[in-house]
Amino acid sequence: MKRRDFFRNTALGALGAAFTAPLRAIGQTTASARNIIFMVSDGMSNGTLTMASLLRQRKEGKQSHWLQLYESGKATRALMSTASATSLVTDSAAGSSAWGGGVRVPNGSLNVGADGTHYTPILQKFKKAGRATGCVTTVPITHATPAGFCINNSHRGDMGEIALQYLPLQFDVMLGGGREYFLASHRKDKQDLLQQYQNNGYTVIDNRDALLQLPAANSSPVLGVFCENGLPYALDREQDTTLQQQIPTLAEMTTQAIRRLSKHPKGFMLQVEGGKVDWAAHANDAAALLYDQLAFDDAVKVALDFAATDKNTLVIITTDHGNANPGLYYSDKANSNFDKLHTMRHTNDWILNGIQRSTTPAALIERIEHAQGLVITPAEAGSLLAHYSQLDGDGLYNPRKLPFKELAMIQSAYTSINWGGMDHTADYVELAMTGPGSELLPPFVKNTDLHPFILKHAGI
Amino acid sequence: MKRRDFFRNTALGALGAAFTAPLRAIGQTTASARNIIFMVSDGMSNGTLTMASLLRQRKEGKQSHWLQLYESGKATRALMSTASATSLVTDSAAGSSAWGGGVRVPNGSLNVGADGTHYTPILQKFKKAGRATGCVTTVPITHATPAGFCINNSHRGDMGEIALQYLPLQFDVMLGGGREYFLASHRKDKQDLLQQYQNNGYTVIDNRDALLQLPAANSSPVLGVFCENGLPYALDREQDTTLQQQIPTLAEMTTQAIRRLSKHPKGFMLQVEGGKVDWAAHANDAAALLYDQLAFDDAVKVALDFAATDKNTLVIITTDHGNANPGLYYSDKANSNFDKLHTMRHTNDWILNGIQRSTTPAALIERIEHAQGLVITPAEAGSLLAHYSQLDGDGLYNPRKLPFKELAMIQSAYTSINWGGMDHTADYVELAMTGPGSELLPPFVKNTDLHPFILKHAGI
Repeated sequence: MKRRDFFRNTALGALGAAFTAPLRAIGQTTASARNIIFMVSDGMSNGTLTMASLLRQRKEGKQSHWLQLYESGKATRALMSTASATSLVTDSAAGSSAWGGGVRVPNGSLNVGADGTHYTPILQKFKKAGRATGCVTTVPITHATPAGFCINNSHRGDMGEIALQYLPLQFDVMLGGGREYFLASHRKDKQDLLQQYQNNGYTVIDNRDALLQLPAANSSPVLGVFCENGLPYALDREQDTTLQQQIPTLAEMTTQAIRRLSKHPKGFMLQVEGGKVDWAAHANDAAALLYDQLAFDDAVKVALDFAATDKNTLVIITTDHGNANPGLYYSDKANSNFDKLHTMRHTNDWILNGIQRSTTPAALIERIEHAQGLVITPAEAGSLLAHYSQLDGDGLYNPRKLPFKELAMIQSAYTSINWGGMDHTADYVELAMTGPGSELLPPFVKNTDLHPFILKHAGI
Repeated sequence: MKRRDFFRNTALGALGAAFTAPLRAIGQTTASARNIIFMVSDGMSNGTLTMASLLRQRKEGKQSHWLQLYESGKATRALMSTASATSLVTDSAAGSSAWGGGVRVPNGSLNVGADGTHYTPILQKFKKAGRATGCVTTVPITHATPAGFCINNSHRGDMGEIALQYLPLQFDVMLGGGREYFLASHRKDKQDLLQQYQNNGYTVIDNRDALLQLPAANSSPVLGVFCENGLPYALDREQDTTLQQQIPTLAEMTTQAIRRLSKHPKGFMLQVEGGKVDWAAHANDAAALLYDQLAFDDAVKVALDFAATDKNTLVIITTDHGNANPGLYYSDKANSNFDKLHTMRHTNDWILNGIQRSTTPAALIERIEHAQGLVITPAEAGSLLAHYSQLDGDGLYNPRKLPFKELAMIQSAYTSINWGGMDHTADYVELAMTGPGSELLPPFVKNTDLHPFILKHAGI
């Protein structure tokens, strides 16, 4: 099977059959990996990985592609410690920097140490070595996880600045959200960055059709920013044809990124982030969390299918830290409660952002039943609506003040899913590899160990 | 180093050095394992494993022995699904039965299927094959996890019946709690089981000295029941010289069990359970949880040290299911909050069981500060004491009604440790192996896969 056939055959069925030789065969010589695909489900606790795989298994008959890789016996696994320089509990900036720069930095910093030292980000190292480079994410492309592979900045929040920092670096494919950080109308300095990117030779796109029609042969760098901030949750996108036309899936972005990067004669490194898994965990939003984890899992399939055909690609699949440690809890109805996820149509984010001050308890009950099939009580509806009377503005809600926690607590009686909090945890996390070099992964690693591991196996 | 030297050298320091050859060396031929040691930290979520290892690392400079095994590169790991026949969320009876009988049975059942089929427990298979057998636990020896390796009973709660079932089976070493199920004064049938065990050739012991003085050469079976129900938490035991004299540690029970079982000419299978890890998780009792996990970890060291010397022992280390999914959560004080665990002297169990109706808020504040170094507010103390006015009886509290949840919620502001609930979860769990056969462990297994795996590698 030639590499170009990979993109024609989008319905690559039997994953196991696609691998023609086990990569961990005893006695095999380790070769350099031509390509590196680094996949991050941001803020994925162990329960998130478990429940998403159970959901896929009970709904579609097979586990997640991530765990199918394990069932195939072709993965090497490690437990990874995720601390930052300043805390046992990392944020995503320090987490990405540990991989991207190889050094633990303070929370909030992108590859800048507490003493001001700048550590060179890994995509700059790949670029310097003549490799193709790219990032794909469901959150702003200027967000912490892609930025930690790309630039140095002691303030992850300076996303307008980060958008400027990317410009001269000429990474080959940058796809995600965050258009607001590039728009003159939204930027403090009133610069039109999209125009500047075009002036500097970038192909700039802002919708799914333009992404799907990108020529593979064209070697100009691509910037794709498909909405102002984070992309919509996968589940909400599926219910909205306008969103479907405007916004690509993470799997589609990954496919197009690999399609272009793999034309490069010296190989590539691509980071793929399921960034809204973390946002959903912060919001204790079970439907958002599990369907975005499955959207990430679809992108995992794209990477694994490419690697199986290419035979020269190291795929790394992991997370930067746990978040909210969700779980399916014991109940005599645990199975049937969990299976309510099968038919959910919308996230809690969709439910709560659609409530007005004028919404009645009856209307809210109907809205939640429509979105998720759960019929809450009038008292529960009233307790949720009480939060809206305290909000500022008229329909313009601060998402941080919406009653996400309260809705999750109400839902747990219906779904058996509970949460330990609304923030990151220190949990050691899951890490998987397949491809050249993966057989040398030790059973326990620090997040910083991956930086030299990747450089070594990429021959840089 | 001869095998008997292992027991003389109780301070086996360098774990890594004790292994003279990597067990996963490429090209190594797989031999049968003469001995199997199956170690269960009952109800251990990923966060429990992580936090116990972080506690050991920050307090003693090294990770847990479990994770030191990973750092040594001598372990094979798998992710394990833990469901029962009736639920995605197992109880400990079905969980142990999956390993012990090789078949998923309904929650609450010990190796009895929904249709009444009895599946032969693995220790009976080992016994029939002429091997030595044993169980060691910190909860009643009649509790679900040991019982699932030993007997068939559709009701795990019939612990008086289970104590009778063990009698004719003549397993070589049975050590733990649960004396009440053997005492005429506590049994419904008024039988004196301890006398019956003696009449049937057992050596019956009930205190630590008797355990430590057991002759290694004596081949009679041993029943050791060291207190009426579950053993005290490791942390509370350390503060009480009476308990220290009466009750052995899990590591001491494991040492003595291996000492006797390893004299058997045809090898042995031993189950070791840290059973109160699960009880502590049900109670959201952080100090109890992490120090009992470390007491389990000390027993892991005993098993690994023996295996390193013996070179013919397969050690399996895992849990039956997650419980309460605890985590150390993000805070600017996460590290210093977590380090408060270093100097804690007592569990929440000790705090709450020592409160009387007459206890004042000031006395409770002082009690908690003495036990754990946390100074709670008068309002918090008052809210805890309010629960005691509702309790029945005079000082005889139903443990299920004590305000464990409320205390854990108050503590989280001081420790940054939070919990998702007070019950089991469906999380896929950690499984590690080292020794002959371990290199054949696939990356993902069902709990039931271990039964044939063990029999195969033990040559049964």
